[in-house]
Amino acid sequence: MSLLKLGVPKGSLQEATLDLFSRAGWKIALSSRSYVPSIDDSEIECLMVRAQEMARYVESGALDAGITGHDWVVETGSAVEEFAELIYAKQRLARVRWVLAVPEDSPIREPRDLEGKVIATEVVRITESYLARHGVKARVEFSWGATEVKVPQLADAIVEVTETGSSLRANRLRIVDTVLESATVFIMNRAAAADSWKRQKAENVVLMLQGAIAAASKVGLMLNVRREHLAGVIEALPALKNPTISTLSDPDWVAVNTIIEEAVVRQILPKLKAAQAQGIVEYPLNKIVL
Amino acid sequence: MSLLKLGVPKGSLQEATLDLFSRAGWKIALSSRSYVPSIDDSEIECLMVRAQEMARYVESGALDAGITGHDWVVETGSAVEEFAELIYAKQRLARVRWVLAVPEDSPIREPRDLEGKVIATEVVRITESYLARHGVKARVEFSWGATEVKVPQLADAIVEVTETGSSLRANRLRIVDTVLESATVFIMNRAAAADSWKRQKAENVVLMLQGAIAAASKVGLMLNVRREHLAGVIEALPALKNPTISTLSDPDWVAVNTIIEEAVVRQILPKLKAAQAQGIVEYPLNKIVL
Amino acid sequence: MSLLKLGVPKGSLQEATLDLFSRAGWKIALSSRSYVPSIDDSEIECLMVRAQEMARYVESGALDAGITGHDWVVETGSAVEEFAELIYAKQRLARVRWVLAVPEDSPIREPRDLEGKVIATEVVRITESYLARHGVKARVEFSWGATEVKVPQLADAIVEVTETGSSLRANRLRIVDTVLESATVFIMNRAAAADSWKRQKAENVVLMLQGAIAAASKVGLMLNVRREHLAGVIEALPALKNPTISTLSDPDWVAVNTIIEEAVVRQILPKLKAAQAQGIVEYPLNKIVL
Amino acid sequence: MSLLKLGVPKGSLQEATLDLFSRAGWKIALSSRSYVPSIDDSEIECLMVRAQEMARYVESGALDAGITGHDWVVETGSAVEEFAELIYAKQRLARVRWVLAVPEDSPIREPRDLEGKVIATEVVRITESYLARHGVKARVEFSWGATEVKVPQLADAIVEVTETGSSLRANRLRIVDTVLESATVFIMNRAAAADSWKRQKAENVVLMLQGAIAAASKVGLMLNVRREHLAGVIEALPALKNPTISTLSDPDWVAVNTIIEEAVVRQILPKLKAAQAQGIVEYPLNKIVL
Amino acid sequence: MSLLKLGVPKGSLQEATLDLFSRAGWKIALSSRSYVPSIDDSEIECLMVRAQEMARYVESGALDAGITGHDWVVETGSAVEEFAELIYAKQRLARVRWVLAVPEDSPIREPRDLEGKVIATEVVRITESYLARHGVKARVEFSWGATEVKVPQLADAIVEVTETGSSLRANRLRIVDTVLESATVFIMNRAAAADSWKRQKAENVVLMLQGAIAAASKVGLMLNVRREHLAGVIEALPALKNPTISTLSDPDWVAVNTIIEEAVVRQILPKLKAAQAQGIVEYPLNKIVL
Amino acid sequence: MSLLKLGVPKGSLQEATLDLFSRAGWKIALSSRSYVPSIDDSEIECLMVRAQEMARYVESGALDAGITGHDWVVETGSAVEEFAELIYAKQRLARVRWVLAVPEDSPIREPRDLEGKVIATEVVRITESYLARHGVKARVEFSWGATEVKVPQLADAIVEVTETGSSLRANRLRIVDTVLESATVFIMNRAAAADSWKRQKAENVVLMLQGAIAAASKVGLMLNVRREHLAGVIEALPALKNPTISTLSDPDWVAVNTIIEEAVVRQILPKLKAAQAQGIVEYPLNKIVL
Repeated sequence: MSLLKLGVPKGSLQEATLDLFSRAGWKIALSSRSYVPSIDDSEIECLMVRAQEMARYVESGALDAGITGHDWVVETGSAVEEFAELIYAKQRLARVRWVLAVPEDSPIREPRDLEGKVIATEVVRITESYLARHGVKARVEFSWGATEVKVPQLADAIVEVTETGSSLRANRLRIVDTVLESATVFIMNRAAAADSWKRQKAENVVLMLQGAIAAASKVGLMLNVRREHLAGVIEALPALKNPTISTLSDPDWVAVNTIIEEAVVRQILPKLKAAQAQGIVEYPLNKIVL
Repeated sequence: MSLLKLGVPKGSLQEATLDLFSRAGWKIALSSRSYVPSIDDSEIECLMVRAQEMARYVESGALDAGITGHDWVVETGSAVEEFAELIYAKQRLARVRWVLAVPEDSPIREPRDLEGKVIATEVVRITESYLARHGVKARVEFSWGATEVKVPQLADAIVEVTETGSSLRANRLRIVDTVLESATVFIMNRAAAADSWKRQKAENVVLMLQGAIAAASKVGLMLNVRREHLAGVIEALPALKNPTISTLSDPDWVAVNTIIEEAVVRQILPKLKAAQAQGIVEYPLNKIVL
Repeated sequence: MSLLKLGVPKGSLQEATLDLFSRAGWKIALSSRSYVPSIDDSEIECLMVRAQEMARYVESGALDAGITGHDWVVETGSAVEEFAELIYAKQRLARVRWVLAVPEDSPIREPRDLEGKVIATEVVRITESYLARHGVKARVEFSWGATEVKVPQLADAIVEVTETGSSLRANRLRIVDTVLESATVFIMNRAAAADSWKRQKAENVVLMLQGAIAAASKVGLMLNVRREHLAGVIEALPALKNPTISTLSDPDWVAVNTIIEEAVVRQILPKLKAAQAQGIVEYPLNKIVL
Repeated sequence: MSLLKLGVPKGSLQEATLDLFSRAGWKIALSSRSYVPSIDDSEIECLMVRAQEMARYVESGALDAGITGHDWVVETGSAVEEFAELIYAKQRLARVRWVLAVPEDSPIREPRDLEGKVIATEVVRITESYLARHGVKARVEFSWGATEVKVPQLADAIVEVTETGSSLRANRLRIVDTVLESATVFIMNRAAAADSWKRQKAENVVLMLQGAIAAASKVGLMLNVRREHLAGVIEALPALKNPTISTLSDPDWVAVNTIIEEAVVRQILPKLKAAQAQGIVEYPLNKIVL
Repeated sequence: MSLLKLGVPKGSLQEATLDLFSRAGWKIALSSRSYVPSIDDSEIECLMVRAQEMARYVESGALDAGITGHDWVVETGSAVEEFAELIYAKQRLARVRWVLAVPEDSPIREPRDLEGKVIATEVVRITESYLARHGVKARVEFSWGATEVKVPQLADAIVEVTETGSSLRANRLRIVDTVLESATVFIMNRAAAADSWKRQKAENVVLMLQGAIAAASKVGLMLNVRREHLAGVIEALPALKNPTISTLSDPDWVAVNTIIEEAVVRQILPKLKAAQAQGIVEYPLNKIVL
Repeated sequence: MSLLKLGVPKGSLQEATLDLFSRAGWKIALSSRSYVPSIDDSEIECLMVRAQEMARYVESGALDAGITGHDWVVETGSAVEEFAELIYAKQRLARVRWVLAVPEDSPIREPRDLEGKVIATEVVRITESYLARHGVKARVEFSWGATEVKVPQLADAIVEVTETGSSLRANRLRIVDTVLESATVFIMNRAAAADSWKRQKAENVVLMLQGAIAAASKVGLMLNVRREHLAGVIEALPALKNPTISTLSDPDWVAVNTIIEEAVVRQILPKLKAAQAQGIVEYPLNKIVL
């Protein structure tokens, strides 16, 4: 049987990734006795691999595909196909940033102030390339983690990843510049991407993962409205997408069903009520493919 | 920009309140480093305040609005506007009661048996007013908590809050009388309530909170039925609200969609089946504005 | 008032059972102070009873009905009515198997190799009946639990229950044969089953439990499609059940709403998209009565 | 090499037993992957066995020795040598009791009130023998556990084990009679007990276990005293054992060192102070062999 | 029998107090079912009482004695006998301080800057007395807890208790002044203190508690030394207390045994080694009565 | 004031190290808000640093001293002084080994079988040097952790650290060879080691740490014996160290006090009893400097 060898990121992205697969329809079961998880799909074989090492193993063909950060593809310089973006991170459905940060009271204000300084980071190559772009010479030291602790005692600045900046603020660090924006990516080995079965399988997996990501920030909204007030209700809804308008057995009324961002519901609902919508109901979604 | 300063109750109501805001569409993030939570709405500034102190700070204008118990508004005698009831408590979507309770084997059977006794309570003022109404003289002592432990060694009776009575029963206490019924309330400073922007903002927040409260005890029910059996199905449904009846492409059938209390589903479903409803599906809701 | 005395299984099935009742619409609250839980239905009285003892107490009439495994009905030889199957177990919505297992390197390959051996098991009667069927004589010893540890030091083989086989594999045991398949069953005392009120009440409870079990593995799917593509969309859906097709206010389009197994969504969704379905939304369900 | 096959009780005694071995000088390491623990003594091989089954396997010779309750030796009627008592139980260094218990408000007051009743218990044989001694006929039903829940709904009385009685009181049960007192025992297979190496090894293990048990309830006490006050100090100490009196370089003083029950320290210390003892120090002990 | 009714502080001091009693030789067992703990001394009856309320109940005679903070005796103005200091707090064996604190960037620098300001505190009476001593008029508001959150939004300054100041620093507060130093105290009702049995019992309890407190920060040190080096060794030891010097069977050597603060061991040990001490051993202590 | 800048290993050694410092007499308090712990010694400033990076920062002078593994000193090739060995690891007071391991069923049996293979490891430099010693050419890939998962899918062999081998066995790996033995070491910057104050301070710290390590595996033993049996008792004790023999006020008896390995107590105690020793008491120790 055909088989897609898929690397799942071990470590900080692990929990969010397993949760995402679960919502997308695949149960991946980690065993305490092995790092090879089981998955309820006989066409996929999973392997837990650190995000940092994923691109290397996908490049070599040990894996057909894998989920990692765009940052680690860049850092390792691996020749893989970035097949699709999956916009989620450890805590949020959003991109992350690698930022240049210094202690709150550091005199460093812009990249050129780094001249001759020591920078600690997990992404030595990305940092060196950033310095080269700014024409600055500085010593970049590989950090095994807990990079925030290194300033000011062990380094002058750090390049560190952040989702919301709160960990940096808690360590009283100030962001000087963004070095790289990165999202989670679904990468493929180039030979595997040229194999039509594997490519099709990968596309289906990505479709479901993206459907689950889309659903996580959206909700369904349904309501009834008299035909005469329908235009006002439509106007109150976000313009992006036409809602589904169904006929009811009472011909004076229609039912409206639509999908909207959960974040805007609190602005929309008062307007819908004002527009004479009735029986407004918000309900949760599992997946969306628009 | 306009800003609503909103007090969120710290302590026993805290978890239920943050959960309610989350379902209503606002993420409030507590920080381990500060008691000033962040909220994802630039028009609101939150402050965690004990329910007992909320009304005092809303009265003084330190806060524009706050969520607390009606009991604490009464106890502190604060001059605030009780803007809306939000029927939820620590464990349940229901009112709470302050009750007069005594040990199971106490001779105290009615309020006048309290004459000359010692009563421990967190609500001294409410208790004294209750005693005055009954023309009884007794010593009321302020209790810092764990009031149930005080009888019979340290007090003859207590006035204590209860949701279900189970904690009282576990302490082998008997309820003599209800002193005060109380619900959670959304209160406003009187000047803030007279400011149209603040009032409108508060109304929108309350609309969403009530929508989430309403949804928590209700579910959606949809089913298909032949037109000839529709009347029987309608009869099986609670009379309160007309269901939505949609036309299907097969003109002999209609679809029925309605919202009902989750607690009655187990009574309704067998009746719907008996009435020839088909494809009966119960689904969860996030919010309801009827 | 009429009352159904219902035994709820204590122990390994307990958590799954309480969760199932919760989804079916009954809150059963265990108290740390008592083994008699409260239930929010005045027509039911619950008692926590070990699955192994359930059939005995239902047979004697101490309970009107109970939930236990078919295996324990067989093992105890109790004369009760197996009223309905409820296909769920500790970890999964599935049957369990009692299997004959031996150490991976044991010479035992088939039932007759057991001649003269020692077998440890919790189900002595079932095992003896199995041996009799195969015309084999062996010593069957009652095991109080942790039966897997008994081979090879204390027994030559075991008869043990398994859901997925993973615990047996972890103990390096090999399955030789299936001794008994078993599902969770709702059993009734024969006299109670002949009482029309009790039987009706039991039927309603079972209807709701099965509705919740059915919903747990299924999801709702709704989508819009142009009439001209409807046939293709219908073809992409599982053949089992007709979907609900509703008319929209735009006569060129229809909405399709259907219930499918969650496990097949990942196969169906790509096909639906290929068949020109639009606005495909998957949503969760609480209960299904088809 | 010679080897003692030793059964360690799995279940309720397990934690206390492993802790006791640790204090006695043996590290027994349970593995999550196997029920055969490792022990840091090449002359011992351990096996985790339920206390209820221990005597049976020691009798058959599958084990040379084991630790279990005297109760289970009696219940299983196994022919083994009860080599030594080890006075410890799940929570305390004390014997346990199997008691006949009934609901607080039961009319059963003495054994003969059991005539014709149903008794639930884990120790059917012990209970039947107790009833025979009292010339009472009653039905004894095997209980798989949670026996306290069985009265009054499923049984009239229970025979249950208790250390302190607190679990019975919490279930509102009243103790009618003690059926059997039991301590933990170190048992040996009779052939193994006749083997001089195995017997010697068992004696050494028991010596260390008893040394650790003895130390757990005792402490060391040392103090200095002028020779003229020595008699008074000696008198304040428990009479049981002569204290060690050492000479100091200052000939007017002596040092007194003794071992006493921790429970009496709070009575002795004030008396020692009154008797002019100085520099009184209480220190912890690991093992005692007096 | 005579009985000492003893209040044990519930809440922040509770864990440290129960631990102290355990080391002092009394087991106090909290029950989840009652706030009246059991204690293994038939001459004592315990009651869990909040530290804030302790003095009031000792004053009224509901309790003979209790453990609370000196601060709460002052705050409640209760007429009780402060029988003995027990120098321990929630985290440490030390006094606590009530301090006047303000936000780091507040203009308030000294007490008189408080004129006309709002101060939040749990100790209204202590704070008002402090203000009176400084001739300052300010509004003191009772705070139900989480007082640190109140500045700057709800109050200008706070009076709050601190052990190490770390919670204040974490909230970016600056200490302006110490308002009151306080230690844990053992208090007695005046009539009870005049009862010779109760007074004697209380003295014995205090002796043991202080013995356990003293031991917690000290260790035993023993070593051997040639007589010719004894003087040097003695000199290296803290001067406070004469060590015990015992004669050995080898007349050229003596053994030295002494009790010292654990905190100075790391300074003393290198000196002892330099002074030719041999076989230096540090051992733990349970109690000390010097 | 003079100050020793000391690196404490963050990560797998962290817990064991903080525990060791605590037993040695220093409290190091980690703050959740900072990676710079506080230590109760004004002459030391601590910094949490990963073991892998420690030697680099000690070499550069950012730290005066640090605790890390000998392995990481070798791997990083840092020029530091290995001041003292501290024989403890994550789980045990023992050395660790970096071993070459392969899947149980791998054909690789000895180093030269690695020719042309892929080896995954965290210690690339140590592995390359090992291969060079054996004249073997293989590709060594840096592994970010979870190295055991890499065989056989991602690598042919691994070089991994192990204390007891149990993690390797659990992953069904076979050890082919030991690549490097390593203990925890206290390292110093060369300039700091030449500073007499810093060197003296470091020596004192090491003395205490080693004293605590020595005590952890040893216990004190004291006993009384009649002079006529003293020789027999002495003979039963380990020969290593002379016990302390003190004279008692009863001239016929002596007291013997000695320190022995806890692991041999179970062999010694039966012999001491046979040799007529009385009142044998084993007691715990905090620190030993022999």
